[in-house]
Amino acid sequence: METLQVSLGERSYPILIGPGLLGEADVLADLITARQVLIVTNEVVAPLYLATLEQAIAADEQHAIVLPDGEDQKTLQTISTIIDALIEHGFHRDACLVALGGGVVGDIGGFAASCYQRGIDYVQVPTTLLAQVDSSVGGKTAVNHPRAKNMIGAFYQPTCVLTDTDTLKTLPPREFAAGLAEVIKHSLILDHGFFVWLEGHIDDLVAMDAAALGFVVRRNCELKAAIVAEDERERGRRALLNLGHTFGHALESLGGYDRWLHGEAVSIGIALAARTSARLGWLDEDDCSRIEALLRKAGLPVSAPNIEVDRLLERMSMDKKASAEGLRLVLLKQIGEGVIVPSPEESLLRDVIETQTMVQQDYIDGLSESCP
Amino acid sequence: METLQVSLGERSYPILIGPGLLGEADVLADLITARQVLIVTNEVVAPLYLATLEQAIAADEQHAIVLPDGEDQKTLQTISTIIDALIEHGFHRDACLVALGGGVVGDIGGFAASCYQRGIDYVQVPTTLLAQVDSSVGGKTAVNHPRAKNMIGAFYQPTCVLTDTDTLKTLPPREFAAGLAEVIKHSLILDHGFFVWLEGHIDDLVAMDAAALGFVVRRNCELKAAIVAEDERERGRRALLNLGHTFGHALESLGGYDRWLHGEAVSIGIALAARTSARLGWLDEDDCSRIEALLRKAGLPVSAPNIEVDRLLERMSMDKKASAEGLRLVLLKQIGEGVIVPSPEESLLRDVIETQTMVQQDYIDGLSESCP
Repeated sequence: METLQVSLGERSYPILIGPGLLGEADVLADLITARQVLIVTNEVVAPLYLATLEQAIAADEQHAIVLPDGEDQKTLQTISTIIDALIEHGFHRDACLVALGGGVVGDIGGFAASCYQRGIDYVQVPTTLLAQVDSSVGGKTAVNHPRAKNMIGAFYQPTCVLTDTDTLKTLPPREFAAGLAEVIKHSLILDHGFFVWLEGHIDDLVAMDAAALGFVVRRNCELKAAIVAEDERERGRRALLNLGHTFGHALESLGGYDRWLHGEAVSIGIALAARTSARLGWLDEDDCSRIEALLRKAGLPVSAPNIEVDRLLERMSMDKKASAEGLRLVLLKQIGEGVIVPSPEESLLRDVIETQTMVQQDYIDGLSESCP
Repeated sequence: METLQVSLGERSYPILIGPGLLGEADVLADLITARQVLIVTNEVVAPLYLATLEQAIAADEQHAIVLPDGEDQKTLQTISTIIDALIEHGFHRDACLVALGGGVVGDIGGFAASCYQRGIDYVQVPTTLLAQVDSSVGGKTAVNHPRAKNMIGAFYQPTCVLTDTDTLKTLPPREFAAGLAEVIKHSLILDHGFFVWLEGHIDDLVAMDAAALGFVVRRNCELKAAIVAEDERERGRRALLNLGHTFGHALESLGGYDRWLHGEAVSIGIALAARTSARLGWLDEDDCSRIEALLRKAGLPVSAPNIEVDRLLERMSMDKKASAEGLRLVLLKQIGEGVIVPSPEESLLRDVIETQTMVQQDYIDGLSESCP
């Protein structure tokens, strides 16, 4: 078991990483000391891990909420349901909420914990690669608005994160690939050496080699924790983590949140950001090819068929990253160095999106059975 | 105009206090620099001050939401409505929400600002005495759950508070008295000298003498700002500010939030806390009489008729101030010194409540036409 500290002053917390962590009652008893615990999870994760976790937690009073699966659960209504349960069970301010699941469960659980009685303790137990390498680090919680993603939420840090890498064994391949999109993103904006390492080990990762996976989870948490420690509330540098996300969120929103997994939309967004960076003279053709090759080897799409370009551009302008000064994008100066810049003119973006859609059509056709 | 700084590190902010502040475009232009501004107010305050404020704010894009009046607006549904409007108008992350009104508007506006895009700037313009001396200081925001008050919210600091003492001129006497309850509370827990000053100047205050009012607003903000700076998230000493609130919230909750104004319920709570403190040997009969006399001179009730004691005690046990270790109460060691203690046994509380109800019956009968 490894422990990594996220340094945020009085809001600092540890991330514990190791196989089999979920069942280690001794470790959990030290970390979850509340007498009242509510576990929030979903119908996919509950049959696999809920009983193990419930047994390992030593609270006097324990309840669980099992949500339906899917991004469409990220609503204010779900938050209201969780709060009703907390009140129903007479949960006090020193209670603890445990989010057992992927990014969606973490986002919901974290936001509910942040606003129940103005904030109770919460512990994240991420069970997807995406959650383990990305969403469990940094304290972003939110639900969606029908018109845009993650519009209602809070910056709220957990008291600890328990990452049991064994849970990845039960992850469907498509979900696993979606997590790799964020891994690749971290390497692209922050760490050229890690990108090269990924090029050399992508097959091991896809084969779920334990050593490669352990390294990837830890390295990603380190990279993300460092940037969050610098800029917790995303006033500046933290926005680098949004590489591919402005394109990606717009795609997800157009697809009604169920057409693409978040990581898949981000993967397409990364490819579009790379191509935009190339138009500005920062990346060359070879860089773009390497990036797309790595995304594809990870099992990810690099373009979406039948994009309605006008609607996509319109959704992008509603993105949280937009300010009164206009949309800002994360692009790449080179592999391993992200930059935050005012968006290039719409005609350039339109051209990049249209070209990417055409060029990649053959590849997409081949994917069309696994990715909708 | 006076300026007072609330010291909270990177979340520090100024409170500006002065007559006529609302119309001072120069002052407002320096403080509200966002290009997009949403003013949240209610149907009582809007006809009085909205036009003045709108004219003084120099934002490119300005909208207003006028809520119905009353505590029953403090729901998650209202938050959702405000967020819909922010999205509808395409408000970005660098937008600003201005809460123009009393404690209810501030609580709603602050919570909406805290969770829109995980937090946008918000400015408080308190127009009631209660908001000016209490709720605008300290960053507590929340809405109610049908079963308990302020259960859903956030600690979220404004970027500044603009207190125009002229707005008190239009405040109904009952609302004004309700604000005095919090003033008296601050003196009781923190400042014996200020309590004595209040005893000497309560008539001036009730007559709305400008100099006395100006002093009271500033002194209260100082007292509250100091305690908030020490303990922003109410892990310890800040809980002193809850004197009278555990009784008070339970009373409000039993009355369905429209029987008592918050300050009236707190006033009854203060009297009950004083009598409980006397049972424990900390206050004497004379102290209790002075406290009740001051509350009465301020136009406040010190007991509620027909209290259903069982239901009141049950509601108290659901209070946010309760922990898994049991209910904690704020009581008085002496006038000017509050303490946070485990609740005395229920039989003592029951006896205090029943006695207070009987002893004060005559007085209540006299009040019954102005206070329901």
